[in-house]
Amino acid sequence: MIIDCHGHFTTVPRTLHAWREKQLAHVSDPDNAPKTRDLKISDDEIRAAIEGGQLKLQKERGSDLTLFSPIAGQMGHHLGNAQTSQTWSELCNDLVYRVSQLFPDNFVPVCQLPQSPGDSPANCIPELRRCVEQLGFVGCNLNPDPSGGYWKDPPLTDRSYYPLYEELVRLDVPAMVHVSSSCNPCFHGTGAHYINGDTTAFMQFLLADIFVDFPTLRFIIPHGGGAVPYHWGRYRGLALDLKRPTVETLMRNIFFDTCVYHQPGVELLTRIVPVENVLFGSEMIGAVRGRDPNTGEFFDDTRKYVDASRNLSAADRNKIFEANARRVFPRLDARLKQRGQ
Amino acid sequence: MIIDCHGHFTTVPRTLHAWREKQLAHVSDPDNAPKTRDLKISDDEIRAAIEGGQLKLQKERGSDLTLFSPIAGQMGHHLGNAQTSQTWSELCNDLVYRVSQLFPDNFVPVCQLPQSPGDSPANCIPELRRCVEQLGFVGCNLNPDPSGGYWKDPPLTDRSYYPLYEELVRLDVPAMVHVSSSCNPCFHGTGAHYINGDTTAFMQFLLADIFVDFPTLRFIIPHGGGAVPYHWGRYRGLALDLKRPTVETLMRNIFFDTCVYHQPGVELLTRIVPVENVLFGSEMIGAVRGRDPNTGEFFDDTRKYVDASRNLSAADRNKIFEANARRVFPRLDARLKQRGQ
Repeated sequence: MIIDCHGHFTTVPRTLHAWREKQLAHVSDPDNAPKTRDLKISDDEIRAAIEGGQLKLQKERGSDLTLFSPIAGQMGHHLGNAQTSQTWSELCNDLVYRVSQLFPDNFVPVCQLPQSPGDSPANCIPELRRCVEQLGFVGCNLNPDPSGGYWKDPPLTDRSYYPLYEELVRLDVPAMVHVSSSCNPCFHGTGAHYINGDTTAFMQFLLADIFVDFPTLRFIIPHGGGAVPYHWGRYRGLALDLKRPTVETLMRNIFFDTCVYHQPGVELLTRIVPVENVLFGSEMIGAVRGRDPNTGEFFDDTRKYVDASRNLSAADRNKIFEANARRVFPRLDARLKQRGQ
Repeated sequence: MIIDCHGHFTTVPRTLHAWREKQLAHVSDPDNAPKTRDLKISDDEIRAAIEGGQLKLQKERGSDLTLFSPIAGQMGHHLGNAQTSQTWSELCNDLVYRVSQLFPDNFVPVCQLPQSPGDSPANCIPELRRCVEQLGFVGCNLNPDPSGGYWKDPPLTDRSYYPLYEELVRLDVPAMVHVSSSCNPCFHGTGAHYINGDTTAFMQFLLADIFVDFPTLRFIIPHGGGAVPYHWGRYRGLALDLKRPTVETLMRNIFFDTCVYHQPGVELLTRIVPVENVLFGSEMIGAVRGRDPNTGEFFDDTRKYVDASRNLSAADRNKIFEANARRVFPRLDARLKQRGQ
């Protein structure tokens, strides 16, 4: 079984984007703001969006199941206010829930959180609970920069995050650390802000005692861990210089996906990072949509790189494709076992 | 000959730091601010700092010459105001100039620029000229984030940088893109802000026509190019998706150093990036000072990784160690030729 731990509903019907535009246009005029019930997306529209998009690619590329979350770039926590974010998160989470109901064998839902700059992360707990306990979500995406490229909120290791982490531990769901779009002209979204967010979060975790305080808390750092595996020696050295626990210790709680879009990159990842810490992911349909003119293959067809990596045994590949995801997402494992998988 | 393109005067006598503290304490009280002439550092103190530090390591590790600039983390462009930065830059540049005079065979100077948040980059031109034309500097360090971790200034491709780039082209000196310290609690300096700065700058260059406008402008992106080589497929794919010139085209003007502190990282770099675009660098004495307990070697002894890289021929190593630096820094080449080297 091949589980893709990183997929977003990027093919969502355009009516959602139109609703969002209206919502943002009426942040200061709540009386005329669109209501949740104003958004009409039929099951057929969802089916069409998925069947012509992510499901088609699953089949073509040979993966079986995707952990599926709302469009990361559209989480837009920096837009509007806390209420804007709350309503928008519920709406987006409900849509991926519907995908998971229409295609239960292929998509398992992961939620976005109603974060908002300056707002307490604890305010995300009710939506997290709703998604996990009522709707069967198995994980969440946590934005390390709700300010959208200005990094005005405290690091992920700040005490203000602790109530949320307590809840993640209680529910036994991991968080993927994932920024949203950048409103800072210095940072291109998928080309800079995404990768910077990953690198930044890893270093924040390295500096703090968060995993002493929450020994079972688990984070997936996507996009292959940002710059971290490439600079593995820098991080190992910094941990020693700064008298912090080793990077190896940190890897009890941190996992990287395989969203690295070329063979040598995936080979570095699988050579450096313990195989138990690598989860198959493609981010498709996402950041890069074209084909490599040198090979004719899609850049984001990351299964091919994992298959071809010279560092991996069949047992290693099984961990990356399935076993690690089932271990890191116990609610996914339970759901699969219920189905006899 | 082995040229290290990336060294900082991190062993500078403590009196400099004390002077800087006083300077910053008197930003709003210029009458009582310390004068440049108040800083007394003797040639013997400089000799001791270098002989016990960078020169010792050059000899031990077998490099011959370092392109030597003031401490990157202390450029602190975000501290004080434009005048603070001007005075501080002159002082720091004068110190590396003195190093280059005391050890002309071993250290060739590279300057910091008196950038200041919100200030026009054109204001750096007089100090750049002074360093290059009067003091024999061969390059400069350009901070892509003078705000020190908040990224409040425009991207490096903004038109406001163009007068400075015209001058770099006229003087035929390259710039190393190098952030300073971070005052943003989200970003550890050497573990996040440095690497993010590199990744960010590359993506800025990818998005703009700066090298159409300045076909001979050259940038070194340090720390192995940040996350870029690891995510080479992402950047190649983004360039295609965004209908930008290919990454290969971009590499006419962009160079990466070898400040990647483990063997597999340097192997990825030298496997992916054209050998003409890689310059030997160690960043020593710098970001990581300890030894790898697994090998007993210093993390930042990057010569060992280049020597051991399986992707490189002897001719390739000669390019990385010497020829590329002489090509990218023509004023270094001229100086070496004058000496018969």
